[in-house]
Amino acid sequence: MAELRRDPIVGRWVIVNTDDPAVPSSFGKEDHTPKQETTCQFCYGRETQTPPEIECFRAPNTAPNSPGWSVRVIPNKFPALRIEGNLDKRAVGIFDVLNGIGAHEIIIETPHHSKNLADLTDQEMFDVVKKYQSRSRSLGQDTRFKYILVFKNFGESAGASLEHSHTQIIALPMVPKYVLEELTGSQSYSEHRGRCIYCDIIQQEYQDKDRIVCENKDFLAFCPYVPRYAFECWIIPKQHEAQFAEISSEKQASLASVLKELLIRIRVALSDPSYNFFLHTAPVNYQSQESYHWHIEVIPKLTRVAGFEWGTGLYYVPTPPHESAKYLREAKL
Amino acid sequence: MAELRRDPIVGRWVIVNTDDPAVPSSFGKEDHTPKQETTCQFCYGRETQTPPEIECFRAPNTAPNSPGWSVRVIPNKFPALRIEGNLDKRAVGIFDVLNGIGAHEIIIETPHHSKNLADLTDQEMFDVVKKYQSRSRSLGQDTRFKYILVFKNFGESAGASLEHSHTQIIALPMVPKYVLEELTGSQSYSEHRGRCIYCDIIQQEYQDKDRIVCENKDFLAFCPYVPRYAFECWIIPKQHEAQFAEISSEKQASLASVLKELLIRIRVALSDPSYNFFLHTAPVNYQSQESYHWHIEVIPKLTRVAGFEWGTGLYYVPTPPHESAKYLREAKL
Repeated sequence: MAELRRDPIVGRWVIVNTDDPAVPSSFGKEDHTPKQETTCQFCYGRETQTPPEIECFRAPNTAPNSPGWSVRVIPNKFPALRIEGNLDKRAVGIFDVLNGIGAHEIIIETPHHSKNLADLTDQEMFDVVKKYQSRSRSLGQDTRFKYILVFKNFGESAGASLEHSHTQIIALPMVPKYVLEELTGSQSYSEHRGRCIYCDIIQQEYQDKDRIVCENKDFLAFCPYVPRYAFECWIIPKQHEAQFAEISSEKQASLASVLKELLIRIRVALSDPSYNFFLHTAPVNYQSQESYHWHIEVIPKLTRVAGFEWGTGLYYVPTPPHESAKYLREAKL
Repeated sequence: MAELRRDPIVGRWVIVNTDDPAVPSSFGKEDHTPKQETTCQFCYGRETQTPPEIECFRAPNTAPNSPGWSVRVIPNKFPALRIEGNLDKRAVGIFDVLNGIGAHEIIIETPHHSKNLADLTDQEMFDVVKKYQSRSRSLGQDTRFKYILVFKNFGESAGASLEHSHTQIIALPMVPKYVLEELTGSQSYSEHRGRCIYCDIIQQEYQDKDRIVCENKDFLAFCPYVPRYAFECWIIPKQHEAQFAEISSEKQASLASVLKELLIRIRVALSDPSYNFFLHTAPVNYQSQESYHWHIEVIPKLTRVAGFEWGTGLYYVPTPPHESAKYLREAKL
C-alpha cells in the first residue's frame, strides 16, 4: 500500500511508494565524462570569451579577466532576463506583462574543467558559498529586484548545457510562485501557532531520526517526509533565520562543509547522478522574518517527470525518504 | 528584451523569449523506432499477461482477454494507487497521511504496436475518446474518489516506459494541487466579474487570432499566451462546460477530430517529438460549474526543466506562443 502524504507548508500531496521501494541501483547511470574541455569558455585562458567578470577571488598581481582566479562571477552571456531598463508594467488584453528585467549571473566555482562541487577542498567550497552570499547581497541592493535565487544544474539530464561546474544566480522583479507558496504557508502556520513551521519540522526530524543524512553544529541535512523526488534532500540552518544573505562568515563555512558532505554522499550512494539544487531564502526586505526559514533543496535527477506530475502537481516518489536517508547516511566515503 | 507574462488563472509568471525565438529545428530529435514489439504485453495474443480487461471495444464473438479488440482498458499492473481499502486519514507527527487508495487504469488505444494516436482513423480516435469518457464516468461513481485525471505520455523523454500507444487514467481521493489552483483562480474571477475566465480567454484568442492552431465547430486548439513550454497547446470546448464526463457523443467525435489534427500538426512541425497531455476537468460533483471550463493541455517535450523552474515555478519559454502557433498552423499535412 502506497501512502499519500501532505506537505504541511504548501499543502502539496505526494504518493510515496512504501511497498517496494526503488533501490539506488534501479536508477539509470549517467556518463559525466568531460567533452567540452577544448572549447570551454569557463577555463583558464578563455576569460575574454565571456562577458567581463563582476567579482572574483584571484591570486595577487593577476589582472581581471585573465588566469589566476579561483572563483569567478560573470554575467550570463545569454541571460533569461536583462539588467538594463525599467519594469514597465502593462496590460495586454486580459493578461499582465512586464519587461524582462532582472539579472542573470554565473558563478564559475573552479578553474578546473573536470572538477565539480563535490571535488572542492573545504576552503574552495567556502569561497563558493561566500560568492553566493556576496552576489545575493549586491543584487538585493537594486530596488527593482524582489527576489534573488541561487541555483545549480549539474549534468545533462538536470539541464546543464555547459559541463564546467558553475552555479547560477537570478534576480527577479517578483517573488516566484513556489517561494510565495512557502511564505504564505509558513506565515499562516506562524499566525495560528506562534511558531516557525520549519523549526517544527527540524524538531520532528530529530524525534524521528531516520530521515537525517548528516549534520554539523549549524546545519542539518535530511530527506523530507513529503519529498517530490526519490532521494530529495534539504539542508537547513538549525537556528531560525529567514535570510541567507545575512548569515555570518562562520555559518558560511559551516554550510560549505555540510553541502560538500551531502554532495559526496549523493555521488557515492547514487553513482554520480545529475542533480539540481536551489536556495530558498526570504524575499529582499521581507517583513515576516519570524515565520520563514531559509534552506537549500537538493534534487538528484533519477526519474523523469511525466504527464501525471505535469497535470496534477502531485508527485510519485519511488523511494520513501527514510530509505533514501539510510542509503545516503551509510554511503562509504 | 524578454517578456514576463502572468497567467490570469493561477497567477503563474513565465519568461517568454521574444527576442530571438527558438525554431523547431533547434530542438533535439528523438528516435521512436519500436524496440519492445516481441515482448509487448499490450499486443494481440498477450492479453493474459495483463490484468483482466475492465472495458473493451472488440469484434463480435471474440472472448474477453483474447485478440479481436480495438480499444482495451485494463488496470495498471503496477498501480501508483490501489483500488482496495479505506482512506484511513491519520496524523504522523506534524504531517497528514492517507492510505494510497485510488484507481490506475491503462487505455490501450490500438492493437497495432507501431501506431500512435496521430495514426488512428477518425473512428478509432472517437473510440479512444469514448473510453476516456466512460471510464471517467464509471470511476466518478466511487464515492472515495474526488478527481479523475486522464493523461498520456508519448515517448521516452516524456516518461513513457512502454512504447505501445496508451493513455492512463487515475482516480484520486483528493483534488490535485494544479487543478485546485485553476478552480480557485477561476472561481475568484467569476465572483469578481460574473464570467468564466476560460470563456474570456477564448474571446481574447479570437480577437488576437495569431495563437490559434486549428478548430472545428465545437473545439478550439491554440497556443496559450502564458505557456510554460515551447509549443504548449490547449484544446478547449467553445461552449462553456465544466465536466468532460458529461459531453455529448457528438462532441466526443468533434474532440477526437481536433485532437487528432493537433497531434498530426505537432508531429509534422516538430519532427515527431515526445509529448504529454492531460485533461483538466472539474472534480466529481463540483458545485461551481459556471466558473470552471474543462480543457486538454498538450506539452511537446522539447526542452529540459532544470533548477530554475524547480526552484521558482517560473518557466522560461524559448519560443513565444504566436510563433509556435504559426509553425503548427502552417505545417504541411
